Amino acid sequence: MAELSHLNQKGNVRMVDVGEKPVTSRRAKARAQIRVSAELFKKLRENSLAKGDFAATARIAGIQAAKRTAELIPLCHPLPLELISVAVSLEELSLDGPDRVIIETEVQARSTTGVEMEALTAAALAALTVYDMGKAVDRGMVIEEICLLEKEGGKSGFWKKG
Amino acid sequence: MAELSHLNQKGNVRMVDVGEKPVTSRRAKARAQIRVSAELFKKLRENSLAKGDFAATARIAGIQAAKRTAELIPLCHPLPLELISVAVSLEELSLDGPDRVIIETEVQARSTTGVEMEALTAAALAALTVYDMGKAVDRGMVIEEICLLEKEGGKSGFWKKG
Amino acid sequence: MAELSHLNQKGNVRMVDVGEKPVTSRRAKARAQIRVSAELFKKLRENSLAKGDFAATARIAGIQAAKRTAELIPLCHPLPLELISVAVSLEELSLDGPDRVIIETEVQARSTTGVEMEALTAAALAALTVYDMGKAVDRGMVIEEICLLEKEGGKSGFWKKG
Amino acid sequence: MAELSHLNQKGNVRMVDVGEKPVTSRRAKARAQIRVSAELFKKLRENSLAKGDFAATARIAGIQAAKRTAELIPLCHPLPLELISVAVSLEELSLDGPDRVIIETEVQARSTTGVEMEALTAAALAALTVYDMGKAVDRGMVIEEICLLEKEGGKSGFWKKG
Amino acid sequence: MAELSHLNQKGNVRMVDVGEKPVTSRRAKARAQIRVSAELFKKLRENSLAKGDFAATARIAGIQAAKRTAELIPLCHPLPLELISVAVSLEELSLDGPDRVIIETEVQARSTTGVEMEALTAAALAALTVYDMGKAVDRGMVIEEICLLEKEGGKSGFWKKG
Amino acid sequence: MAELSHLNQKGNVRMVDVGEKPVTSRRAKARAQIRVSAELFKKLRENSLAKGDFAATARIAGIQAAKRTAELIPLCHPLPLELISVAVSLEELSLDGPDRVIIETEVQARSTTGVEMEALTAAALAALTVYDMGKAVDRGMVIEEICLLEKEGGKSGFWKKG
Repeated sequence: MAELSHLNQKGNVRMVDVGEKPVTSRRAKARAQIRVSAELFKKLRENSLAKGDFAATARIAGIQAAKRTAELIPLCHPLPLELISVAVSLEELSLDGPDRVIIETEVQARSTTGVEMEALTAAALAALTVYDMGKAVDRGMVIEEICLLEKEGGKSGFWKKG
Repeated sequence: MAELSHLNQKGNVRMVDVGEKPVTSRRAKARAQIRVSAELFKKLRENSLAKGDFAATARIAGIQAAKRTAELIPLCHPLPLELISVAVSLEELSLDGPDRVIIETEVQARSTTGVEMEALTAAALAALTVYDMGKAVDRGMVIEEICLLEKEGGKSGFWKKG
Repeated sequence: MAELSHLNQKGNVRMVDVGEKPVTSRRAKARAQIRVSAELFKKLRENSLAKGDFAATARIAGIQAAKRTAELIPLCHPLPLELISVAVSLEELSLDGPDRVIIETEVQARSTTGVEMEALTAAALAALTVYDMGKAVDRGMVIEEICLLEKEGGKSGFWKKG
Repeated sequence: MAELSHLNQKGNVRMVDVGEKPVTSRRAKARAQIRVSAELFKKLRENSLAKGDFAATARIAGIQAAKRTAELIPLCHPLPLELISVAVSLEELSLDGPDRVIIETEVQARSTTGVEMEALTAAALAALTVYDMGKAVDRGMVIEEICLLEKEGGKSGFWKKG
Repeated sequence: MAELSHLNQKGNVRMVDVGEKPVTSRRAKARAQIRVSAELFKKLRENSLAKGDFAATARIAGIQAAKRTAELIPLCHPLPLELISVAVSLEELSLDGPDRVIIETEVQARSTTGVEMEALTAAALAALTVYDMGKAVDRGMVIEEICLLEKEGGKSGFWKKG
Repeated sequence: MAELSHLNQKGNVRMVDVGEKPVTSRRAKARAQIRVSAELFKKLRENSLAKGDFAATARIAGIQAAKRTAELIPLCHPLPLELISVAVSLEELSLDGPDRVIIETEVQARSTTGVEMEALTAAALAALTVYDMGKAVDRGMVIEEICLLEKEGGKSGFWKKG
C-alpha cells in the first residue's frame, strides 16, 4: 500500500496561468530614488567618478535587467518586451534636504500579463548600478524608494500611484 | 595619414583592477524594507497569497540573485561566494504607521574585493519578489529602503551604517 | 583554385525550422521519481532538512529551469510559456519497497512547437534540487525515472505514456 | 510599538556556510541511463537522427550545464571547475531487455565544497538533450536512472555507490 | 527649490520602440571567416584537434549564442527565433593564399524587428569557438571578416551585401 | 549479453583538465576592427547615433561578455577575472582607405589557464554592439579583424602577434 501525502496545499508556490488571457498592449512606469552625499552629488553632476559614466552604465544595466526579469523573479512569465526606457536625472535640494539620483523607467509589450515587474526590475538594477559606481565615494547611499508609478492594459486597466 | 581620436577620456566606463589586491575575508550585510497595505500584511502573516509562500520564494530569489551580481551590475567582479543568507520578517506598527516586510541579507567570500553589491542585490531581488507575490492584492507597495548595513574586510576595513 | 569541403553532411547539428508551423495551444506533463532512504524520507516528511524547505525550493528550481530550457538544451526553440506547474509529493511504501519523492510538472504555451522539453527540464531540475537538499543525509539517492506523461497540441496531437 | 514576527524558523531555505572549510581537491562521477526503443537505438547507432549528432550535442550540453549548476540549483555554491568530462555510449541488450544510452560524467575542482551536483547536473542535461534529439522517433524514452557513482575529497572523503 | 538636471540628452542610450511595428517574417544571413595556419588547417580537415570535433562544437555555440543575443547586445529586443542554422566549411587556397574556416549562419523569426544581430552573433561565437578549439595549435588565427550577407522582411525590405 | 559501443573516439569534445596546472598571473590583449561608411563615421565622431552613446554601450557590452565567456564558448573554464578593459577609438583614413572603429581589450586573472578567449570575446561583443548601434545608418559595416594581440603567463609564457 502506498500513502501519498501531497505537499501542494497552502503556501505552495505557483505561477499564474495566463493561457486564457488575451494579448493586449501593456505599459508600466516605475521610479527609484537614491539619496547621496553632497560630495558624491558633486561628482555625479560633473560625471567625474573613477569608474566612469554612471548614467550610461545605469541605463544599460536597467535595460538589460528588464529583459531578464523572468530569470530573476521566480514566478514572472517571459514577455516579448518592445520598449524599455531608463532615464537618469539628478535632483538637488537647495536647502537642507538630501540630494538625489532619480531613475525613471518605462516598459511596453503586447502580452497576456503586465510589465510592472519589468519596469521595477529595471529601476532597481539601474539604482544598484549607481550605488556600485559611487560606493567608493559614499558607501552610505540609500535607495530610498522603488515604486510603480503607473500601469496600463489588461483586465485591471489603468492604475496610477496615488 | 591616420587620425586616431581616442574616446577613452572623462566619463569612460572601467572596471577596477583588483589584480594587486590580496585575497581576504569579506562580509557585508544589507537590508530592504517594503511598505505594504493592511490587507496585504494580513495575507502575508497568514501566508495565504494566491501565488504561494512569499518568504521562501523571496529568500531563494535573493540567494540566486547574489550569485548573478556580476552579470547584473556591469562593473562588478565575479566572486566565489561562500555564504548567502536572506531573512524575511514582518513588522507591524500598532498605531498609525505602515506595516512592513523586512529583508536582511548577509554575504561572505574570500576575495580581492568586497561583497557589498552581492548583499544589496540579494536584498533588492528578494524585495522585488515580495512585490511580485503580493501585487495582485496591493499594487501600491513601496520598497522604501535598500541600504548597506555593514561591511568588513579589505583595506577600508569595518564600516557600519550611521 | 579553392577547394571547398563542406562539413555539413550526416550527423550535423540542426534546429528544426518551425517558421511554417501554425501557433497552437500546447501542453505537456512530465514526472520524476527519486528513491530515498528511510532516514531521509522521515526528514522530508517532517520538512526538517538542515538546508530548509525542500519542496518549495524544488518547485521554484523547476519553474525557473523550465523558463531556461532553450538555453540548456542546444536545439530547443525559445517559447513564451504561459503556465509552469511543479508539484512535489511523498510516496511511502509500507512493505519492502523504497520510499519516493515524486515530482509532477505541467507546462503550457501557445507556440509553433511543443513544450515537452520544458516539462521534462522542470522535472529534472526539481529532482536534482531535492538531491541537493537531502544529500547530506543520503548521498545514495537515485533519480529512478524522468519521463513524459502526456502531451497535447500540434500536428501529432495527443500522446499519453502507455 | 512594533511586533517583529520572524519567519526564519523550521523549513527555511539556507545555503551552507563554506567559509571555514579548507580548499581541497574534489572529484565526482555520475551516470544517467536512457531506455530507448529499438527503432531509435538503430538511428543512434547509425548517428542518423534528423537533428544531427546526438552524442556531440549531449556532451556539449552536459559540459555547459555543469558550469551553470549554481544558477540552476538554488543552494549550490559557484565553484571554479577544472575538469568536466561527459561520455556517451550505447548499450544493446541482445535478448529481451531494452536498449540504452548511457551518460557518464566526471567533474573536478579545488574547492571548499564537493562537485557532486555538477556531475549530476551534467548527466541530467546530457540525458535531456538525447531525449530532445530523439523524441521525434520515440517520445516514450525514459531516463531511468540518474545517480552519483563516486565522490572524493572533503571531510567525508571517498564515497562509492554500493 | 529643486533643480532637476536631466541627463537624457545627446548620446543617451535607448532601445528602439517596436510597439507600433507589425509582425512580419524576418530572415538574415551572416558570415565569418577565420584565417588559419597550414598546420591547423590540416588538423581541422582531419578533425583531429585535441579538444575534439570543432565543427559540431562551433555549430552548437553559434546556435546557442543566437538565442542569447538580447542578453549580449544591450539594445537588442528579445525575439522568438524559429530557425537558426550554422554551417561550417573549410576553404583551402591551392597557391599562396591562406587557408580559411568559413561560418555561414541563417536566422528566421516572425517579429517586429529584424534578426540581423542574431545571425551576426551566431557567426561571431561560432568563429570564437573555432579559435578556442584550435588555439593550442595556432594562436595567431585571425577572424578576418564578420559581416551580414543579406536580410529580408520589415519596412526596409530585402538587402544584400554589395 | 550487452554490447557496449563507445562513442568517445576521435573527434570527441573534451575540456582540457587544468587541475594539475599552477595558478599564475595571466594577461591577454585582443583587438577588433570595424570598417564603416563615411556617413556612419561622421555620426560616430559626433556621437549622434539615434540609439545613443555607442562607445559607452560597446565598452559595457564587452566587459559583460568577458565575464560570460565560459557560458558562450563550450570548452572554456570559468575564470575569476580581475581586470577587463575595453577601449574604443576611431581611425580616419585621410585618403582612399576606409574609416574604422577600433576596439582594444585587455583581461587579467590569476588562474590555471589563460584569458585569451575572454579578451577575444570582449572584443567581438563590443564590435557587434557597434554594429547594432550603427546598423540603421550603415548595414554594410564589416568587422574586418578580430585577433589576439598578446598574451602572458602560463607554461607557454609571452606571445605577441607577429
